[in-house]
Amino acid sequence: MDPYVIQMHSKGNLPSVLDVHVNVAGKSSMLGKMKGKKARWSVRPSEMSNKTFNPIRAIVDSMKVQPNPNKTTIALSIGDPTVFGNLPTDPEVTQAMKDALDSGKYNGYAPSVGYLSSREEVASYYHCPKAPLEAKDVILTSGCSQAIELCLAVLANPGQNILVPRPGFSLYRTLAESMGIEVKLYNLLPEKSWEIDLKQLESLIDEKTACLVVNNPSNPCGSVFSRSHLRKILAVAARQCVPILADEIYGDMVFSNSKFEPLATLSSNVPILSCGGLAKRWLVPGWRLGWILIHDRRDIFGNEIRDGLVKLSQRILGPCTLVQGALKSILHRTPQEFYHNTLSFLKSNADLCYGALAAIPGLRPIRPSGAMYLMVGIEMEHFPEFENDVAFTERLVAEQSVQCLPATCFEYPNFFRVVITVPEVMMLEACSRIQEFCEQHYHCAEGSQEECDK
Amino acid sequence: MDPYVIQMHSKGNLPSVLDVHVNVAGKSSMLGKMKGKKARWSVRPSEMSNKTFNPIRAIVDSMKVQPNPNKTTIALSIGDPTVFGNLPTDPEVTQAMKDALDSGKYNGYAPSVGYLSSREEVASYYHCPKAPLEAKDVILTSGCSQAIELCLAVLANPGQNILVPRPGFSLYRTLAESMGIEVKLYNLLPEKSWEIDLKQLESLIDEKTACLVVNNPSNPCGSVFSRSHLRKILAVAARQCVPILADEIYGDMVFSNSKFEPLATLSSNVPILSCGGLAKRWLVPGWRLGWILIHDRRDIFGNEIRDGLVKLSQRILGPCTLVQGALKSILHRTPQEFYHNTLSFLKSNADLCYGALAAIPGLRPIRPSGAMYLMVGIEMEHFPEFENDVAFTERLVAEQSVQCLPATCFEYPNFFRVVITVPEVMMLEACSRIQEFCEQHYHCAEGSQEECDK
Ligand SMILES: Cc1ncc(COP(=O)(O)O)c(C=O)c1O
Ligand SMILES: Cc1ncc(COP(=O)(O)O)c(C=O)c1O
Repeated sequence: MDPYVIQMHSKGNLPSVLDVHVNVAGKSSMLGKMKGKKARWSVRPSEMSNKTFNPIRAIVDSMKVQPNPNKTTIALSIGDPTVFGNLPTDPEVTQAMKDALDSGKYNGYAPSVGYLSSREEVASYYHCPKAPLEAKDVILTSGCSQAIELCLAVLANPGQNILVPRPGFSLYRTLAESMGIEVKLYNLLPEKSWEIDLKQLESLIDEKTACLVVNNPSNPCGSVFSRSHLRKILAVAARQCVPILADEIYGDMVFSNSKFEPLATLSSNVPILSCGGLAKRWLVPGWRLGWILIHDRRDIFGNEIRDGLVKLSQRILGPCTLVQGALKSILHRTPQEFYHNTLSFLKSNADLCYGALAAIPGLRPIRPSGAMYLMVGIEMEHFPEFENDVAFTERLVAEQSVQCLPATCFEYPNFFRVVITVPEVMMLEACSRIQEFCEQHYHCAEGSQEECDK
Repeated sequence: MDPYVIQMHSKGNLPSVLDVHVNVAGKSSMLGKMKGKKARWSVRPSEMSNKTFNPIRAIVDSMKVQPNPNKTTIALSIGDPTVFGNLPTDPEVTQAMKDALDSGKYNGYAPSVGYLSSREEVASYYHCPKAPLEAKDVILTSGCSQAIELCLAVLANPGQNILVPRPGFSLYRTLAESMGIEVKLYNLLPEKSWEIDLKQLESLIDEKTACLVVNNPSNPCGSVFSRSHLRKILAVAARQCVPILADEIYGDMVFSNSKFEPLATLSSNVPILSCGGLAKRWLVPGWRLGWILIHDRRDIFGNEIRDGLVKLSQRILGPCTLVQGALKSILHRTPQEFYHNTLSFLKSNADLCYGALAAIPGLRPIRPSGAMYLMVGIEMEHFPEFENDVAFTERLVAEQSVQCLPATCFEYPNFFRVVITVPEVMMLEACSRIQEFCEQHYHCAEGSQEECDK
């Protein structure tokens, strides 16, 4: 007997339930039909990949609009501070990488959570008396994205839920849904500088809530929470016993008038996984170095969550060792001036953009205090031509070649997001084109003629 | 009414099924008890992290043995060619990285599948008429580990199975089980230079088989499949309509007496995802640059699998951009001499080690033809003191300070794996210590006195 033939019957075009039924009546007619019949190719993508959905890609890709050929394109849509070359990283950062290369010491495998020495550096850099850190509290990851992935993967099972800001960074949903974790959206309030609607937040929590994601400073809002607001968020988490994933990738990127408070420094009992990395503050997002800081003074995560993170890190073995090797110098040698210059550039661009857009009829920008973004409300009643923010931003590309992300990408319709890392002249030119666009399309809402006359 | 109090009841110490039962009888006594009671902290690691299991870590960590303090430790256990400094990468590779750094062009985000230009370089480097490749067929990943992760994640659903070699690299199981995918082991035959037992392989395939993992050249065997054996493997896949994940991270790392044949060059109909990277051949495993080459001439994967891979790559956004930027020069400027020198060093060490171990009573090394490893059978009947390969290698550390991985780590008991990348003197010293060890512990098997007298 040929074993291959035998095998064949257990594979391939298996009879469906219905066929089996028929087959029972017709005896071996089915087997007869299958005899010698080849299995057929049928390779389908997994449910996980089907469930992996990036709303930004989906929305942007569906916007099949060409920019106006008579105007150069200005992209205010790309959350990458390096694209225009006006915000290079510091020479010390580049030098640190060259030193790591020349040392020849950072070509081999590091432990999957990162070199001990590199984790020590991150720990001591972010250590503070109110939120102490040691090397064992640090896990290095392939970008802040993987930090978030590992945190969600260790905290939540399929069928559980996580609480995510609206508007908010789309990766939380992308990652959660790919893992079968439900996303519940809590509201940020534009009229309160994007503070969290705490009652609504708390009303979402149920026995299946695995964690609360807090993103401060915020993408897409550019908002920075005050100490007292952070305390209130922590109080909700403490009362409800929900651990926090603090996405602090824009940590310390706040303008002179506000202060960044790492969430963990304000609580001694809520267990917090703080995610960060080099991407934004050091302006090297492509290098893919992120981290998780484990704050757990009451030992609520305990060894189990720590071990879980370590085990998950072994799946793909941590970030590039050269960047890990350069970390010490990157953290210690980058001059204060560099951070300062980045922030004063961002603030000046933010002011400029805010000022220009606030003067445009039909737009309501919300002044940012940090990060690299600014959200702009569209008074849709004044733009009846456009069904929504997607249609609005689409036409803005078609007519003015200015690209902004419709905030539907952040689950917040009727707003759009502006990236404020572009060179000043571009920022100004973009604002004046947006103004032209709005003036051309602005309609007075019914019964508000006066306003229009202004 | 205080919304916080209401919330509390749906959270925390929920009554178990039994409690609810009691509660129905005792009416609201339960509610009464819970009133005002705080939710309790209980943060448990997810099932996924619990299921993420690294056998090497588990076995090695459980070997709580100290090396002999009178002998310096020789580690033949670490699959990292860079640890002893005798196998540095080529200066052109380092220079390529410096050029990428200096250009300032590779600090920003790349597309999640990698820069188009870098994918073009990989495609043209691995293109051949019998297995053509374009940029669209290449996905850059964070090491070959992530390449394997993405391939498994796109091909298999929880409850399906994959076929994996025994002995084999443990990551396949680690990744698969963390995703709820079952692992079925097919046998490699040491007496046939670790060729696959094709009948047994085929007997494992069922309607839930999502893919066949073929690792050539092999970790831990150091074996290299002949063209005719590869053809037979492809015939099984074709007959059973099972796609192949070809782990070819040691591709081209074969000794002068054998030839590496990329699996995809031998088939025009079996869809193949070939995983590779810079780690081994360019001796920079820490840099975490890997790739997936999609071979699908019959369009069986189709756009769906391709799109699935792209979507999955968006979760953590690809490998370090600097290494991507350096890829072109790494692939084109590394001199042939570098590859040649690495391989002749490995072959000479392999011969040396094989020769020395073959002469030791009770050991049966299997001669390797590539990669960086050699498997050694232990005739356990001659070492009755030791229960198994773990006990054997443990005592080898305790007495001789020589560390080898027990092949139980690769699901293949009574063998151990030797890494042949260590400096020659170390290799020799290790072999003579292994000899001393074996001579001291060798016992004649019953009824074979003659053999012992030899
Ligand atoms: C809020 C937020 N979190 C995380 C990330 C991801 O950071 P990384 O590039 O380090 O993965 C981003 C990137 O834009 C972000 O805006
Ligand atoms: C067979 C095999 N596949 C894949 C890998 C992982 O390679 P990388 O370090 O590029 O993730 C290894 C590493 O040892 C290996 O031996």
